[in-house]
Amino acid sequence: MNALVFDGKLKLDRDYPTPHAPAGESLVRVLRAGICSTDLEIIKGYMGFRGVLGHEFVGIVEDGEMRGARVVGEINAYDGTCSTCRRGDVTHCPNRSTLGIMNRDGALAEYLTLPARNLHRVPDAVSDAQAAFTEPLAAACEITYRVHIRPTDRVCVLGDGKLGLLCAQVLHLTGCDLLAVGRHADKLMILKMRGIPTTTDPDSIRGTFDVVVECTGQASGFELARQLLRPRGTLVLKSTFHGAQEMPFAPIVIDEISIVGSRCGPFAPALRLLEKNLIDVDSMVSAEYLIARGVEAFQAAATPGMLKVQITMSQ
Amino acid sequence: MNALVFDGKLKLDRDYPTPHAPAGESLVRVLRAGICSTDLEIIKGYMGFRGVLGHEFVGIVEDGEMRGARVVGEINAYDGTCSTCRRGDVTHCPNRSTLGIMNRDGALAEYLTLPARNLHRVPDAVSDAQAAFTEPLAAACEITYRVHIRPTDRVCVLGDGKLGLLCAQVLHLTGCDLLAVGRHADKLMILKMRGIPTTTDPDSIRGTFDVVVECTGQASGFELARQLLRPRGTLVLKSTFHGAQEMPFAPIVIDEISIVGSRCGPFAPALRLLEKNLIDVDSMVSAEYLIARGVEAFQAAATPGMLKVQITMSQ
Repeated sequence: MNALVFDGKLKLDRDYPTPHAPAGESLVRVLRAGICSTDLEIIKGYMGFRGVLGHEFVGIVEDGEMRGARVVGEINAYDGTCSTCRRGDVTHCPNRSTLGIMNRDGALAEYLTLPARNLHRVPDAVSDAQAAFTEPLAAACEITYRVHIRPTDRVCVLGDGKLGLLCAQVLHLTGCDLLAVGRHADKLMILKMRGIPTTTDPDSIRGTFDVVVECTGQASGFELARQLLRPRGTLVLKSTFHGAQEMPFAPIVIDEISIVGSRCGPFAPALRLLEKNLIDVDSMVSAEYLIARGVEAFQAAATPGMLKVQITMSQ
Repeated sequence: MNALVFDGKLKLDRDYPTPHAPAGESLVRVLRAGICSTDLEIIKGYMGFRGVLGHEFVGIVEDGEMRGARVVGEINAYDGTCSTCRRGDVTHCPNRSTLGIMNRDGALAEYLTLPARNLHRVPDAVSDAQAAFTEPLAAACEITYRVHIRPTDRVCVLGDGKLGLLCAQVLHLTGCDLLAVGRHADKLMILKMRGIPTTTDPDSIRGTFDVVVECTGQASGFELARQLLRPRGTLVLKSTFHGAQEMPFAPIVIDEISIVGSRCGPFAPALRLLEKNLIDVDSMVSAEYLIARGVEAFQAAATPGMLKVQITMSQ
């Protein structure tokens, strides 16, 4: 099958072996998959991953009870039996593999396998292009899963990339006093069209937010996020990137801020939000490529100003 | 009056002007004051403070309605009118001064002034030596104020200095599954005598704690604290110190940990715990000096292995 493989270098492999689903797993024929910033970090060395890239997809189940169903899939395959899983923290299972990120081939290929229990049927009202946003939208829903966002809170989303735009839209629905801070008027326009206040100049609003969500994808975003927070505020860290950052600790203690790391999220609420058309993902698709042009698609995705690039497996 | 003053160098000033209480403040004759690790950081440059050091004290009110009362005092003088104060976060008032730490002369002198509303009467059952622990014990109580510690939680206190010993004793009272990690068998013995499990070797218990309280006072403590946490666990940062620390961000996001900064705490519960003899502070007094020997007292306090050094103002 065709697959986009990273083995130290990104390449299209036209003869990658089609996977066989082990017991408990399903074979899924991929219809469409998105390129995520995490994929761009992986080809810079993040996670030390080797194999088929991609973890945002929609596809058709080829076997088992769900055969023929159009599905999306949670990306962490967990054992379900360890103490972490039994506590309910299955996305943190120490024995997990993660689609296209850790010890498991990903979705930028004609076929993938995932445990059947990871798959969710896609409502008819949700298009393929929309469904491929379920995974990053779930990651945005992880914010409200992890942190109690009050409708009275003053909330800032810092960063107008793909994840920032999704986080801002999810938080907007809480009724909170939201401001999105970014650098790109065209990207912020997607939020403005939904009635979300935006700014490109955060200098005058430091120290005023109950919650700041850091989605810049850059280590330097942390310090600005911290400065935007009020004392005892909560800084939600969404960005994953390769490398470390020099950080002064004293202000965290003196201002008694909380920092909450947030990663993969719940799929069911993300699918509900898409089905009810409460999140605009259509405006976020910048380009679409056939998998045969997948390397070019990655180059496009890494271009400043681009939002989501999606890859289709056949015409 | 006698005062221990830091003006780039620590010195005893025998002719420091006795303060006059402005409107709303009380003059307090200091009986006894403790030296805190923060004081040792200040004379290394932390906070850029100049003036009379010290913020842990017990004294007698010399004027006003509380005249003659034996009191301890909350160290942050706040305006009470700004939005931060009206939200209840008075210890974060942007216009605050802080006793012996920021824009306000401290307690290592014969007299100090504080707003009358900052003072708390000391119960008769609490000795002067014990009462001078109210401020750091309140800082330990700030952990349970800021973070919900469940009696089922597995909790680690990292660091067996003065603050670590107080934090461990407060957390022990929640009924949680507590382990204190330190480097000094003699200091940990204070906890062992209260029935608190201790260890000097945390290597085999990484990844197992719901909550880790970082009290090492060293930047390097953060990384060990993080490694001791389970995914989605909570790291409470108590240490304040001069300087920054290189920190990898990805593990915070991947493991979805929470980091909670914690500083000054509530005095009323600290006084209740002392009155009911639920916390052993007597074992933590390593030495006592007259203020005339205050510089020597600071040298002693900075000696490895020392716990609390207290200073009395007269014999």
